Formats: sequence, C-alpha cells, structure tokens
Amino acid sequence: MGRPKKRKGLGKLRPQRKSKFEGKMGKAPGTVTYMGRREGGESIVNVFEYNGEVLHTYERTTIESVLAQKGDSYTTWVDIIGISDEAFIEQVGKGFGLNPLVLEDTVNTHQRPKIDEYEDYIFGVFKMLYIDGESQEIVCEHVALILLDNRVLVFQELEDDVFAGVRSRVRNKSGRIRSRGADYLFFALLDAIVDNYFVVLEHLNERIEHLEELVYANPTNEVAQEIQILKKEVLKVRRWISPVRELVSRLIDSEHPLISKDTKVFLRDVLDHSIEINESLQIYREMSMSLMEMYMSNMSNKMNEVMKVLTIMASIFIPLTFIAGIYGMNFDHMPELHWKYGYPMAWGFMILLFIALLIYFKRKKWL
Amino acid sequence: MGRPKKRKGLGKLRPQRKSKFEGKMGKAPGTVTYMGRREGGESIVNVFEYNGEVLHTYERTTIESVLAQKGDSYTTWVDIIGISDEAFIEQVGKGFGLNPLVLEDTVNTHQRPKIDEYEDYIFGVFKMLYIDGESQEIVCEHVALILLDNRVLVFQELEDDVFAGVRSRVRNKSGRIRSRGADYLFFALLDAIVDNYFVVLEHLNERIEHLEELVYANPTNEVAQEIQILKKEVLKVRRWISPVRELVSRLIDSEHPLISKDTKVFLRDVLDHSIEINESLQIYREMSMSLMEMYMSNMSNKMNEVMKVLTIMASIFIPLTFIAGIYGMNFDHMPELHWKYGYPMAWGFMILLFIALLIYFKRKKWL
Amino acid sequence: MGRPKKRKGLGKLRPQRKSKFEGKMGKAPGTVTYMGRREGGESIVNVFEYNGEVLHTYERTTIESVLAQKGDSYTTWVDIIGISDEAFIEQVGKGFGLNPLVLEDTVNTHQRPKIDEYEDYIFGVFKMLYIDGESQEIVCEHVALILLDNRVLVFQELEDDVFAGVRSRVRNKSGRIRSRGADYLFFALLDAIVDNYFVVLEHLNERIEHLEELVYANPTNEVAQEIQILKKEVLKVRRWISPVRELVSRLIDSEHPLISKDTKVFLRDVLDHSIEINESLQIYREMSMSLMEMYMSNMSNKMNEVMKVLTIMASIFIPLTFIAGIYGMNFDHMPELHWKYGYPMAWGFMILLFIALLIYFKRKKWL
Amino acid sequence: MGRPKKRKGLGKLRPQRKSKFEGKMGKAPGTVTYMGRREGGESIVNVFEYNGEVLHTYERTTIESVLAQKGDSYTTWVDIIGISDEAFIEQVGKGFGLNPLVLEDTVNTHQRPKIDEYEDYIFGVFKMLYIDGESQEIVCEHVALILLDNRVLVFQELEDDVFAGVRSRVRNKSGRIRSRGADYLFFALLDAIVDNYFVVLEHLNERIEHLEELVYANPTNEVAQEIQILKKEVLKVRRWISPVRELVSRLIDSEHPLISKDTKVFLRDVLDHSIEINESLQIYREMSMSLMEMYMSNMSNKMNEVMKVLTIMASIFIPLTFIAGIYGMNFDHMPELHWKYGYPMAWGFMILLFIALLIYFKRKKWL
Amino acid sequence: MGRPKKRKGLGKLRPQRKSKFEGKMGKAPGTVTYMGRREGGESIVNVFEYNGEVLHTYERTTIESVLAQKGDSYTTWVDIIGISDEAFIEQVGKGFGLNPLVLEDTVNTHQRPKIDEYEDYIFGVFKMLYIDGESQEIVCEHVALILLDNRVLVFQELEDDVFAGVRSRVRNKSGRIRSRGADYLFFALLDAIVDNYFVVLEHLNERIEHLEELVYANPTNEVAQEIQILKKEVLKVRRWISPVRELVSRLIDSEHPLISKDTKVFLRDVLDHSIEINESLQIYREMSMSLMEMYMSNMSNKMNEVMKVLTIMASIFIPLTFIAGIYGMNFDHMPELHWKYGYPMAWGFMILLFIALLIYFKRKKWL
Repeated sequence: MGRPKKRKGLGKLRPQRKSKFEGKMGKAPGTVTYMGRREGGESIVNVFEYNGEVLHTYERTTIESVLAQKGDSYTTWVDIIGISDEAFIEQVGKGFGLNPLVLEDTVNTHQRPKIDEYEDYIFGVFKMLYIDGESQEIVCEHVALILLDNRVLVFQELEDDVFAGVRSRVRNKSGRIRSRGADYLFFALLDAIVDNYFVVLEHLNERIEHLEELVYANPTNEVAQEIQILKKEVLKVRRWISPVRELVSRLIDSEHPLISKDTKVFLRDVLDHSIEINESLQIYREMSMSLMEMYMSNMSNKMNEVMKVLTIMASIFIPLTFIAGIYGMNFDHMPELHWKYGYPMAWGFMILLFIALLIYFKRKKWL
Repeated sequence: MGRPKKRKGLGKLRPQRKSKFEGKMGKAPGTVTYMGRREGGESIVNVFEYNGEVLHTYERTTIESVLAQKGDSYTTWVDIIGISDEAFIEQVGKGFGLNPLVLEDTVNTHQRPKIDEYEDYIFGVFKMLYIDGESQEIVCEHVALILLDNRVLVFQELEDDVFAGVRSRVRNKSGRIRSRGADYLFFALLDAIVDNYFVVLEHLNERIEHLEELVYANPTNEVAQEIQILKKEVLKVRRWISPVRELVSRLIDSEHPLISKDTKVFLRDVLDHSIEINESLQIYREMSMSLMEMYMSNMSNKMNEVMKVLTIMASIFIPLTFIAGIYGMNFDHMPELHWKYGYPMAWGFMILLFIALLIYFKRKKWL
Repeated sequence: MGRPKKRKGLGKLRPQRKSKFEGKMGKAPGTVTYMGRREGGESIVNVFEYNGEVLHTYERTTIESVLAQKGDSYTTWVDIIGISDEAFIEQVGKGFGLNPLVLEDTVNTHQRPKIDEYEDYIFGVFKMLYIDGESQEIVCEHVALILLDNRVLVFQELEDDVFAGVRSRVRNKSGRIRSRGADYLFFALLDAIVDNYFVVLEHLNERIEHLEELVYANPTNEVAQEIQILKKEVLKVRRWISPVRELVSRLIDSEHPLISKDTKVFLRDVLDHSIEINESLQIYREMSMSLMEMYMSNMSNKMNEVMKVLTIMASIFIPLTFIAGIYGMNFDHMPELHWKYGYPMAWGFMILLFIALLIYFKRKKWL
Repeated sequence: MGRPKKRKGLGKLRPQRKSKFEGKMGKAPGTVTYMGRREGGESIVNVFEYNGEVLHTYERTTIESVLAQKGDSYTTWVDIIGISDEAFIEQVGKGFGLNPLVLEDTVNTHQRPKIDEYEDYIFGVFKMLYIDGESQEIVCEHVALILLDNRVLVFQELEDDVFAGVRSRVRNKSGRIRSRGADYLFFALLDAIVDNYFVVLEHLNERIEHLEELVYANPTNEVAQEIQILKKEVLKVRRWISPVRELVSRLIDSEHPLISKDTKVFLRDVLDHSIEINESLQIYREMSMSLMEMYMSNMSNKMNEVMKVLTIMASIFIPLTFIAGIYGMNFDHMPELHWKYGYPMAWGFMILLFIALLIYFKRKKWL
Repeated sequence: MGRPKKRKGLGKLRPQRKSKFEGKMGKAPGTVTYMGRREGGESIVNVFEYNGEVLHTYERTTIESVLAQKGDSYTTWVDIIGISDEAFIEQVGKGFGLNPLVLEDTVNTHQRPKIDEYEDYIFGVFKMLYIDGESQEIVCEHVALILLDNRVLVFQELEDDVFAGVRSRVRNKSGRIRSRGADYLFFALLDAIVDNYFVVLEHLNERIEHLEELVYANPTNEVAQEIQILKKEVLKVRRWISPVRELVSRLIDSEHPLISKDTKVFLRDVLDHSIEINESLQIYREMSMSLMEMYMSNMSNKMNEVMKVLTIMASIFIPLTFIAGIYGMNFDHMPELHWKYGYPMAWGFMILLFIALLIYFKRKKWL
C-alpha cells in the first residue's frame, strides 16, 4: 500500500476517531494498564477459606488481611471484583509475588484466553460469557484465575459472574469440592466458565432458529441486518471461546506439580466440552451463512413475484388498450365504426384476447 | 461485544425463551442428569448370556439378578433400554464399579461421540442414526457401550435400535460371534451402528437427487427451504458421525488388554467404513451447496423469461398504441383522416411495425 | 435433529424409495456380498503364465486348473472377469488362502480405493476410469489386485479394462515386463490404471472448455444444468482418484518383502502422476465453480439488456402517447385544435421529444 | 497456457507497462538494489550509547565515527534512516561484517518479514505500519533490525517511525531498558512495531464499522468500491503482519547465544500479541466479506422497492386507461355513451377498480 | 457414476475430440515421448566451459564433442535447446548415464516441477515463465536441469529463456559464478527462473489493477470474461510455481554430496523468494475473486439505475395518460368538457400531479 495518493471525498467514507489503544502505546511491557469498561470504583475482596470441616467467609475484606493469614491447612479462594484500580492490582501482585506480565494481562481486558505456567503458580485468563437478563445481549467479562499452592485468586471485572454454583457447592459441607485442594477449585471455576458457554450457544441457536422463521415469513431488511449482527457475534464468541480447547489440552499434558492426577481426569471433561462447543460454533457459523443465502433467495423469489404481476397486468391490458385506441381514431372511413354490432364485436374480440392471454400465463404457471 | 447498547424494536427479532441447559448449570461434574427426550418411564433390562454352546436369554429382568450371576465362562450382553431414570443408572454404575463421569456421559444425550479407556473397562458413546419408518425423518438415538472383562453393557434411549442383525447372529449358534469374546461383541455392535450410517447416507443422497430434479422442474420457495433443511441435516449428521473415524483409529492403536489383536483386524474394517462415510458427507455438503446455487440460477432464468415477455409485449404494443393515439387526436386539420385509404394505410403501417419488431426480437433470440 | 415433528406436504419433497444397502445390513463382517451393477453371469478366468523365455496363455480356463499348476519358475497373471458370483469368489479366496475381509472388499463395488498388506500378499482395490466409446460418459469400474508370491490376481467387474497395453507388453518377448517378477506386473497394472486417469482428466478438461464457450455464446438453462453435472462428476472422480496418492506413497515406504527396491523406483513415478492428477482435479473444481459464476454474470448481463430495451421503448413512447392523448380530449375549448398548423406542430413537438430522449439514452450509453 | 493464440481487441483489456522488477533481473544474488519509494537523499545516522548510568546521544553522525568507537561497556543503538544510497549501505555492511545477502534484504523493500540467525548476529526484516496523520492512510515502512554483540542496528526507510516510546524510555535513566543489554533493546523495538499493529487494526475496525453504517444507510457504488479497497488492505496488512507470529515463535525456540533467557519471557508476550493480531485480521476479513454480502442484499432490496412502485403504478393505471380508451372509441352504436349517468358510472367503475387493486396490493403487503 | 443412462441431445453440450494423451497410453514407463508444442526441428547444443581464468564457448556444437572432452578442471554448462527429437535425447541420456525415467520427464512437458536426487546427479524439472514481448501473454516453457559432478545440463523447449543474466555473468571473468563450481551454476539458473516469476507476478498484478479500473468504469461482458481468464491464469501459474517452494526446501535439507554448504546459503534466498511468490499468488487469487464480486455489484447497480428510469418515466406518464384518456371519452353528458376553463384546468391538474410525483421520487432519492 505504502503512502497512497490521497483520494478526494474520502472524508465521508473514512471515520476520523482516535484509537483506544493510544493510551497504551509506548509504555514498557509489564506496565499495568486497565483497558476495560468499568473505570473508577474500588475493588472488592471476598474470601472463602475452607477445608473438609471448616468454612470461613470474609466479605468485602482487605487485601492486607488476606496476605496476613497464610493458613496452610485451608484452601483459600480470594475473589477480587473490579480491576480498574491499577495501583491496587500491583499491590496484590507484589503481595503474592506475581510477575508484572501476569498483572498486565490480568487487567488487559483485550487479552485473549491464555494459560501461563510459572514455577510457583499457574495463571489463566478467560472470558466469562453470559446473557444479560434485561437486554438479552451476550455479556463478555474478562476473568483471571491464579492457582497458587493452596489458594486460588480470581480477578473479575464486574460483580456478575457464573460462579454461583461453585459458591453454593463450597458452602455445602458434604460436597466433593470441600475435601479437595486448590487445584480442584481452579478446575471447578474453569468448568463453571465453560459450562456457561453452552447457555450462550443455546442463546445463539435460538436466535438462528428465530431468524430462520423470519426469513421464511417476512424477509425485511431488518432481518438481513440481524443476520449480519448474528454472524459477527458468532465470530466474536468463537474468538473468545475457541482457544480454551487447546489451553485445557495443554494443561492436561502439563507436568506442573500444582495440578494433581485426579484433577486431570476432570479437566478431560472440560476438554470434551470445549471440543463440543467449538464444533457447535462451526455449525452456527455455517448456519448463519445459510441464513443469508436463504434471505437472498427469498428476495429473489419476491422480486420474481412482483415482476410476474407487472408482466401479467401489462401484457393483458396494453394490447387491449391498443384495440380501444384503434377504434378511437378519427378517420373518415372506418367501416367497423358504422356496423350495427361493431361495438359488441370489439368487446367480444377484446374478451377473447383477454382469455387467450390468461390461458397463456396459466400454461406458463405464472398464475 | 461487551454489554452492548440496547437497540429498540429488538423484541421481534430476538426470541425470549429459557435455556434447556439451565437445569444442568451449577451442578458438580459427575452429576448424573438426563438431558434426553423420553423423560419418565422405567428402564428395561434384557440380557444375552452365551458361549459357543449355550445361550441364555433374560428379557425384562432386574439389574440385581444381572449383578448376582458373575458367570466367567459366559460372554454377557446387558442391554439397558431407557436412561431417564437417573437413580437406576447410578445403581447400575455402582454395581459395575463405573466412574461417575462415565454415568454422566451415559445419560447426557448431548454428549458427542467419544471413547474413554479406563483401567478395567472401555467406555464409548455413539449416535445410532436410522430412518423412522413412518415420518421418513432421520432419528438420532444416544447409545453408550461399555466393554468390561467378559460383558458388554449397552445403554440406549429408545427401544428402537440398529442391533437386530447382531441379535439374530447371537441367537444363531454357528455364527462366529458365539465363539468369540466380549470384545468381538463390542466390535459387532459398533459395526452395526456404523453400517447403519450408510442407510442414512443413502437417504440423504436420495433427497439430494430428488431435490435436484425439483430444482430443474419447479423451483418453488418450498424447494429452497427444503434445500436449507437438507444442508442443516447434513451438517448435523456430520457432527454426529465424523468423530467416529478418529475414535476407531485410536482404538486400533490402543494397547488396552480388553481389545484382542484379532478384533483389531475387524476394527480396521469399521475404520475404513467411517472414512468412506466422512468422504460421502463432504460430497453431500458440496452437492447441497450446488443445489442452492442451481436454484438461484433457475430463479434468475425465470426472472429473465418473465422480463422478456413483458419487454416484448410492451415494446410491441406501446408504439402501436401511440400511432392509434395520433389518429385519435381532434385537430381540425389532419389531412390523413380524410384520405380515402387513410384507415387501411394506418393499419398497414402498424402491421409493418409489428413485423419489424417481431424480427428484431427474433434476431435477439428472445422469441 | 432427533425425532422431528412431522411437516405436512413433505411427501412431494421427500423421495420414498428403498435403500440399496438394505440387503447388506445385519450381515456379519466378512460376508461376501456383491454390490455392483452386472448381476448374474459367470466369471471368466484368463491366465498369462510367463518368464523371460516362455509365455503360456489360457483363455476362459477354470479356477481349478489355475490352482493345480503352482509353477514357481513362472510369473502368473490370473485375470478374473465378473465378480457377481459370490460362491465362485469364495472358492477362489479359499484356493489362494485369502482373508474373508479381502473377499468382501473384492466384490463390494462401493469400497473406496485401499491397499492392505497381509503377511503373504498385498491386496489393493482401485477404480478403473475410462470413457465409454459410445456414450462418451465416464465409466467407473471396480478392480481388485492381489499380489502373491509369484502371481497377480486381478478381479474386474466388466470385460472392458485399461490393461490392453500391459497385455501387449507381456506378449512382446523382449519387453522389460517379461524379465521381471510379479511385483513389476502389479506395478504395471497400477500404472495403467493411473495413466488412464489422464484420459479422464483430458475428457473433463475438454468439457470444461466446451462449456466455457457455451457460457459465453449462449447461456441457456441446459448449460447451467450441464455445469452442475460436471461439478458432480469432478467431485466423484476426485473421490475415486484422490486416495491413490496416499496409498502409493505408503506402498513406497512399506517394507513388505513382496515389493522389490527396483519396483519402488517405478512406483515413485506413479506417485508423481497421482500428485499431478490431484492438482488437476483441484483446478478443475475451481474452474467449474468459475463457470457457474460466469454463467450467473452472463444471465445478469442479459437481464440488463432486456431491461434496457424495455426502458428505452417505454420511456420514449409513453410520453409521446400522453401528448397524443392530450389532443384526443374532447374539451369544447381547446384552441390548439383549431390552429392551422396545430397538427404539424404537435408532430414537431413529439419528434423533438423523441430526439431528446434518444440523446439522453445515448449519453447514458444504453444505445 | 503456453503460447496462447492472440486475441483481437485485447489492447484495451491488458495494460502495457514496464515491470518495476526489470531493474533487478539478471543481477547476481547478494547485489544491493534499493527497491523502495524514497530514492535519492543521503542516509542519516543517529546513535544512542548507554548503560545503566551514562547515555550518549549522537545525532546526524557519520558511520565512520560509529565504527571507530567499539565501547564494550555500552549498549549501542545505531539508527540509520534512509536506505536508498546503496554504496553507503554496502560500506556499513562491510564495517560490521555483514553477509551480502543481509544487505540485499535490508534495502529490498519488497522483502517479506524474516529473521535469519547468523553466527555473530541476528538479522530481522519487519514492516512498520502506522496511520499517516494527514491522509489517514496506512503507511507501510520497511525496517531492518540487526542484533550484534552489544549493538542494535536499525535501518529504516523514512524518518517517521514507531520507536518514539522506546527512545523516551532509553532517555529515562531509571527505565528497565537502560539496565539490560542489546537483546532487550532488540525486543523493545520489535515490541514497539507489533504494538503499533494494534493501532492499524483499530483503524481497520473503525473503517469496517463506518462502512457497515453506510451500507445500511446509503449503499452507493462508492461504498461498494470502498469495501473492496478495505478488503485489499486487509489482505495486504495480513501479508505484512502474519509471518511475524512464526518468526517470533522460532526466535523463542532458538538457542542463539545473543538472546538471553530473560528476554525470551518478554518475547513470549510479543508472540501472544501477534497471535491476537492474526486472529483479528481473520475476523476483519470475514467481516469485510459480510459487508459486501450486506451491500448486495441491500441493492437487491432497493431493486425490489423500485419494482414494486413500478408494478403498483402500472397495474393500477393501465387497466383504468383501458377503460377510458373503451369509451373513447367512435362506434356509432355505443349505448353507454348516451346514458344519462354513463359518465359518473364509468368514474364509479374506475374508482371501484382502483380500490380493489389497492386492497390487492395491501394484502400482498406491497403497500 | 458408473455407466450412466444416455441422455438425449447431449451432443451439443459435450465435445467430441480425441485425447492428446492417447499417444502415450499403453507405453512402458521410461519411454521417451515428447509431449510439447514445437515438434520437429533439430536440437541445438551450446556449451560454456569455464573456470576462474578461462572461458570456452562452443555454439551449435554436437553432443559427441561434448561427451569427448571430459575436462575435470572446468565447469561445463551444456545447453540443449529443443527436446522434440526423442532419439537425440536418448543418445544424450546414454552418454551421461541418465536413468530412462529422467529422460521421460525431460521431454514430458506436462511434467510438474520436481527434483529427484540420484546417486551421481540431481535432476530438476521447472517451468520458465516469461512474458512474450509481442503478444503480452505469459509463456510457460518446460526446462530440465541436471547437475552432474562438474557439469550442468540444461534442456529447454524453445530458444527464448530467462538465462541471459546468468550468461553475461559467466562471460564476465570477475563474477562470483566463475570462481565457483557446478552446483553454484545450478543454483544461479534456478535463481534466474524464480526471479523471473516476479516479472510474471508483476504482469498479473498490473492486469488485476487494470481490470479493477475497468470494472469501475465500464463493466462490459468482455471485462467479466477477462476476469475469468485472469482467474484461470492465476490458477495455472500457481500450479507451475507453487511446488518450487517445497522442492527447494527439500534440496536445502538434502545431504547430497553435489550441493555444497556455501550454495545452500544461496538456496535459502531462493526459498525465501518462492515463499513470497506463493503468498502473492494467494493474494492475487483472492483479488481476482473480489473483482468478479465487484463486477456483479456494478451490474446490479446498473440494473437498478435502468429500473429507476423506467419506473420514473412510467409512473409519471401512465397516470397523466389516464387523465387524458378520461377526457377523450365520448359520453354525451360530461359537464367538464363544456366548462370554459375545462382544458386549462385539466392541464393544471396534470401539471400538479407531475410535480407531486417528482417530489415523491425526489424524496425517495431516486432523482
């Protein structure tokens, strides 16, 4: 492309906005820069501390108190809600001895899903997807999971999440989760994230089926627009979800001491689900492309129908009008005009012609 | 996407239903939750117990009696029909010492085909596809096969299945199946499932050929709709069938002691068939895409024909009507009107024009 | 899909035939079931028995006599024509000690190309493709080649084949084929099959070029239909041909004692050809898709031309007819009607308008 | 293709220009030939020489003075701006002992991104992409990075670049970059290049969104043209960017002594970004294809609307005109003409017909 | 497909020519059969014999004299122009001890690019592509390169070639080529072939850009045809060029003693170029597909414009003509006809209607 010649009148066709990335450009790697939506607001820290017998719940506690109590006999789930306060995140990072690159990815909401294994911890970034109850839109929330020796740190953007089920299983003393370590908790959270993808798939599936009906019933321009929006959402959801498959597969093959063999059996289940999700997304993509095709074919059909009506009306009445025009001429010598039955005969001829044309169109199956 | 701005009037374009997955969300992994169609109804247990000489058949027996008789000298085929009774499945699982994840996949009818090897048994999930005799639709039935030491457990959703041929071969004393172990029975069932995919392919092939004829003969909107349905079915069938290829290939390479070398020779045959099936599905997919293309080209052809009729009729009669209009004017001084042969001359001129236009359209090959 | 709700009026859109696979369903694997076209008819057995000096030819001999003479000093080519007599095939199989699965694939004309290596022999299934001289259609004939120690068995469906060249080279005493063993004969037959694929490609190429000309010259609906048929044939030919590449490649890498190192050099040539054939088929596929595109663009062009004629005719004569209509009105007070030059002036005005419109359409480059 | 027959009138369809490559043809490999845009002009040499404590800046210095001072205690960043002076580049190459092939690729602005490892240095070619502030076009600038023992050579085409952030970090004494070696500088420059790709992606994204709005609002021919330009730019940007992923990945796996283990951790971050960039480009490609599809569907919609207006107007007024034509006929015996209420009755009939047709079109939902 | 039923009237749609391959069918492998264009004509032999100090040039010499002088102290480049004389080629082959399969591929102009390593020599087949100066068409010339111990044999179809640069470098005593062995000459010839592909790419690029302009300016049917021709040429060029990448890559990895380590460094440069060429071809392919799309969208635009003109003309004048028709009726009692200002009022009404319709179409932005 190089420095192309300027074309005139481009102003209308090209947008003139500032890049949202500009704030990040030129900073050193490892700089913690929040790139998400919910700016401002303090982070909330909630903690579950449990083993087979005991459960301590600390709501809206401080990070200092979390760092203070290093109870080795407990599994601790530290849930940090709100990641826009960069200074706070850096403090947490320092407290747990995390690499600056980990913190950068924790707050960078544009980060694609990844799992990085460090010597002392495993760091994962995922996208929680869920349907917003009110707007019925897909919400994509950035979440970072860090598995330390006997703790799991969770960084989430918003208070809404998909972990309600895990919380209630932790609260329930007899659940399997209470008798297992931090790696099982890490798995349980990942499982909750992946399981919720099925809800999003179901949502997409319903929209596809709904649009299918609309395409057959009433293919308006809005339907075409909605199909395109759907296609874009499938693309984006695929982008958020599809890396999970490979990440989990690599985690299963990994020999990191923090992941026990027992937990790997369960991870295989997550892998299974993510394979299934990828396949579904592939099918949805093909189905949304088919939708557009169907839309175009329906448009073409409708056009055909319109043309047929025009052609039939014009083809029948233009010849008849011509005949009427003939006998509206003012020549002095037009014998037919003076025949006694000239007028009825003209009618008769026109009716015959009318019928002949009807039969012709009937034969062509246009009627 | 994030939390997108709400768009107005979306209600019509977006469906408002509840997710069918919601019942499963938040449960611990390994929870046995039936997700199929036939809810309610007790499970039926049928048992074949045989070796080269003896065959015992127990119809509608109980699982307790099956568990009681651990005859090592027999190969036992335990057929469990109906998997909606979760408590019963858990009981079976406990009786045979199966992993909870196995049971979860056994009743999860959304589970994609898989083969998992455990130390003491091999667990496989497949989709039985067959054509419903009455509705001529493709039925997809979830089936789980478990190969234990000298038993094969079969969990199937409905009473209909594709195992009639295997049953009759078991009943026939001289058949090869009677002299071989449980792994051959496992193979025979898998072979029956895969063989029946050919019937489904044949069904799809016939529908493609039928639609091809319809597209040429009478491309209505219904035909386009049927093509789209076909495309979707091919997609779905492919999803159910395509994993089998890799699964069987992995089974052949596996070193699990339950699969004997002899049986692997036969599994290679199944692999061959599943490769062929995948290739056919790929071709059907391309053919169904061609169908739509052909449909669109036919629509375009038809439109062309309609337009030609309109153009010919209008182009011929509009000029003629104009001439008639000329001599219908009421000017005082129009010499032609008073000529003796004015009227026939006008006719003559119009006929000449008519013929000239006919020749013109003939030359353009529109007639 | 599951058991979908029945849709009404489906009868017309769905075919109601019986599956051709039904005869095979439920049979044990290894059952020899002919699935080809030429049912009935006895098999013919022709034999060449040769070494560097001697050639014995036995036409329409019996299989018993072939089995009797186990002359180790000769290379023997046993050609069995007609594979519909299942009992006979089983007898041959038993005579040469072949696996039942080999026999099943030998007569299963739906079997895709494959090469299976057994301890004592190599078994290959291929598709002979040739152009039927009379109908100019591509004929696909199922052929099975079995390489034993010093024999090659050939099972072919019909009497027509592509081995004429090999036969004449065998008859010619000085040919290289006479001084080499059975593996060279096996290669020579395979080479003959693959070489003939070029003839089929050439046939397809000519049809593509012919259709290209037709698309430009006269894009009728039949041409579109022929393009679709071509696309389907390319798909099918690809399916029959494309596996050969990998099979030959595996044969070259194989360490089976029956294939000598010298023969492998020649097999590399066959590999080269099959790579080239696959590439050609890929190009033909893209070219046939382009053909359809070109067809659609021509249709669109034609439509445009039709619309232009209509628009020009209507746009010129409808205004003129309106003017004539004006002076056909019967108002008492229409001064123009009584002007001396009213009529010529009307004509003049109409001619001016006619010229103005002609110039307008000329400027638009529609004329 | 071979030597095809000459076709007439091809002159208009085929361009008749000279190839820009002709200057390079026939030269020996390793010949330094500049192929860029900014011919003429001397090269500028700027140098940063620093360690943790000291920073020397030499602007517009000579290459001789750079070669003279081989201070091992410093990290040296030699920035050479302008690569059109081939003799100068050869001099630099000789001074630092670079392979002629390296120099050829340094000035060959058509060279695709690559990293070559030599014994004493690592040579990389990349494309700096940035948005020109004035024209809002994407600028692609060729840049070569050479990592020597404690120096980094940068060859850039133009004075504009994306290294402003790196320069200010070098100037800032406390930055991490000052305390690390040349390999970190090499990484930092590469990171700056890749980070700026996000700005370009953002630019593309905004153009896609802007075009999306235009397609819905006002799908003119210019919009279609702009979509095609966008598609081409996405293709070209992908070509410049996509190889980076594999290059960085190979650099991480390399065991070249010049790249320290610490720096590899940071390179992994660059790898992450380049994966994300590739995914985005893939999505942009699909979105730009969807744009064209949407454009076509909107065109089709508009056509439909035009046709409906024509059909409604023609279908209503042609029959009415026919009726008026009937009573404009001049037959002597037309009883209706003499009825007292003939004229109002005719009007009445015409109004009724008008209403009936309106209802008909209303029912068809064309109004 | 099998033996399909004959369809009637196929004659017109199917070509009836003889295959060009028929001459080769049935021949033994290794048979030397020329399949190119320039049949007849003797082969010309030109020889360069050089070392660092001496250069002997023999033009139009005989093969016998070449074979006679086996000067080990020289590097010899034997250039054989014209490969249609099969006997001559066999003689050359025997003289240099080449395998019959090598000779077969040397003269088989349909052979795709390949490199085969034999014990004593390396054999390569490539396609020289260049633009014919006169017809501006791409010429594809078959060339075979054989690297022997200190000789390079070149077999080329025609006298035109792309080796002019190499020849002049050989003639120039001080060039690097003179001081290096036969393997460098082999590389230099290969490099010349690949470098010339850039000229062909440039040619294709210019045609694409030219067609782009034409598509926007004047999308005639010829332009669509030219786009299709371009697409086909891109496909074919890709087929000739794309294998080179893998061949060179394998040559670099090969351990054949004839290729020195120094030469491999240069081969890596050729590899780089062939990767770049493949990428360009991929982009050209996508661009040519975009061209067709753009063409269709322009056609659609044009159609829209035509339809608008028709609709506007018809919608304005058909209602006006109806009004004129009304007052052309001959009812006895039509009060308006007798009003003093009836005629101007009718005109006034018609003008109002005309303006109203103009405003309507203006609002719809059709004007």
